[in-house]
Parts: sequence; structure tokens; C-alpha cells
Amino acid sequence: MIHELIVPQFTKMLTNLLAILDAAEKYAGEKKFDVGVLLHARLAPDQFDLMRQLQIVCDTAKLGAARLAGTEAASPADADTEQTVGEIKARIERVIAYLRGFSAEDFSGAASRRISQPRWNGKTLSGQEFLIHHVIPNFYFHVTTAYAILRHNGVGLGKKNYLGEMPYREPA
Amino acid sequence: MIHELIVPQFTKMLTNLLAILDAAEKYAGEKKFDVGVLLHARLAPDQFDLMRQLQIVCDTAKLGAARLAGTEAASPADADTEQTVGEIKARIERVIAYLRGFSAEDFSGAASRRISQPRWNGKTLSGQEFLIHHVIPNFYFHVTTAYAILRHNGVGLGKKNYLGEMPYREPA
Repeated sequence: MIHELIVPQFTKMLTNLLAILDAAEKYAGEKKFDVGVLLHARLAPDQFDLMRQLQIVCDTAKLGAARLAGTEAASPADADTEQTVGEIKARIERVIAYLRGFSAEDFSGAASRRISQPRWNGKTLSGQEFLIHHVIPNFYFHVTTAYAILRHNGVGLGKKNYLGEMPYREPA
Repeated sequence: MIHELIVPQFTKMLTNLLAILDAAEKYAGEKKFDVGVLLHARLAPDQFDLMRQLQIVCDTAKLGAARLAGTEAASPADADTEQTVGEIKARIERVIAYLRGFSAEDFSGAASRRISQPRWNGKTLSGQEFLIHHVIPNFYFHVTTAYAILRHNGVGLGKKNYLGEMPYREPA
């Protein structure tokens, strides 16, 4: 299930985020203000702004998949230097392409792999703990916060923009 | 993995939410305003207020577990009549107790069970799709939005309050 939780689902959420950013650009165009105002918006003065939220979304997905698959050392580096909507959209698209490179087999040993991060000072989580306690809640936290910053600033969004399409089966 | 994704993890997040509401009450007391102001706060005029966000968090967890386990008909009903912090905290505590009543075996057939909701007009998702596309993103969406409403209103919260403790293993 790890592949399903990360690869198709996170790529869907990231694709939704691209459309949400399109809506933000359109809104800025209609209201005739620089969309950069939104990229620097935040909900509290000591909270990360929208651009930083989006960068963290990208790294949570990229490094989450890489660490679970045991391929962190080979994952592409990102310098967090994006300044424009176009640049952060390009990064999101790179993460989508990167995630799609993982097969279900790439996560076959992931649940029991011991995983760490630089700031954990040698402490570890099992892959399953890392996925459930860290990757999933962090990913959705930063996607939702990005959405909330735009929603608060008047961009016309609803939860369907966040959730995206459901793979419904029609009634028989 | 369904049990781990829902029972221990959602109960942890709901427990974190109880502490976040304690922080909101403390903040209101210090600033000498009625905490009900926060319960009616929202980030956009056409967004649900904090109380409604918390009610949806509760139902997403409760009905998510019940539908996956095939026991929705026996799940306790909630009338969404809470007016105070005490009342919504009591409901969150009831959901925590309810979730803890599910064992891993209760979800043994969940991934392939066909699941529907009243508003889906007979359309269905598999249990695994319901969990990944619906329950998890909705649960974290409403928890994060509740957090964001309080954060925006000045309650002193950080992401650790949202994430809670990690089950780290110390370095050998």
C-alpha cells in the first residue's frame, strides 16, 4: 500500500496544487495585482509564507519517497531558490515526474527500513512509522496550509480543488 | 497497515487537537476574550468556522473507520449541536474511544470492500481508494484548517503541536 499512498496519491495532490496555483495567477490577473504578493502571504507573522510551504510540500514528497525506497543519496537536490509561480510550478512538476519513477517494487522493503533525517541526531523511525507519523501528516499539512493561505486571500477555491477527482465506480 | 493509518495515528492527531484546544482556551483566558470567538472564527467568509471543522474531523475519523470495518450502521450518531469548547472536546474524546475499539482484524477485508456515502448516489470506491483518496486527505485537511484558524488568530502553536510525538528509536 506504500506505493499507492505516495506515488499516485501525492502526484494527484501535486497536480491539484498546480491547478490551485493557476487559479491564484488568474485571480491576481483579474484583480490586477502581482501574484508575488500571494507567494509571500502567510496566515501568521511567524509562519512560513506560501512559497516556503510549497517548497516543503515538494521536499516532503521527494524525500519521503526517496528515504522509503532507500535511494535518498541519488535524489535530485533543490536549492529553494524559486522566486516566481512559474519556477515553483516547474519544481512541483519535477517532483511529480520523480515520484512516477518509483514502482511498487521499489518500496518492497520500505516498511521495516530504519529511516533517519539529519536533524534527528541519529534517532530513527521504521519506514512504516516514518510514512504514517511523518510523511503523510506533513505532506497534507503543507498542502492544506498553502490552500488556506490562498483561500484566506480571496482565491476562489473549494475542497474539490484540494481533493481532486475520486476513482468512483458507477452503480451497477 | 489500515489499522495503523487510522487507529493509532488518528487517535494521536485527535489527542494533539485536544491539547491545541487547551492552548486556545488558555490564550483566550490570558487575553480576556470569550473562547467562543475562536470557535466561530474562519479564514474566509464562505469557509466553515472552527467548530464545524472540528465536527468534520470527528465524523471523518469515526465514519472512515466504521465504513472500512463495515460497521457504519452500528456507529454512534452525532447531531453537530456542540456549542462550547468543552462539548467539542468531549466529542473528540468519544471518537478517540470509539477508534480504540477497532482491532487490526476489524479491517482485514477493508481494502477490497466497496464503500459508498449518501451523497455519492450509489457510486462506490474500494476500501483502499476510500482510505487513500478520501479519509486521509479529508482528515488532515480539517485538522490542519482548525490549526490554521487558531494560528491565524494568534494562538501560540507550532508544527510539533500538530504532529505530536514521534516513536523514535534512539541510536544504538
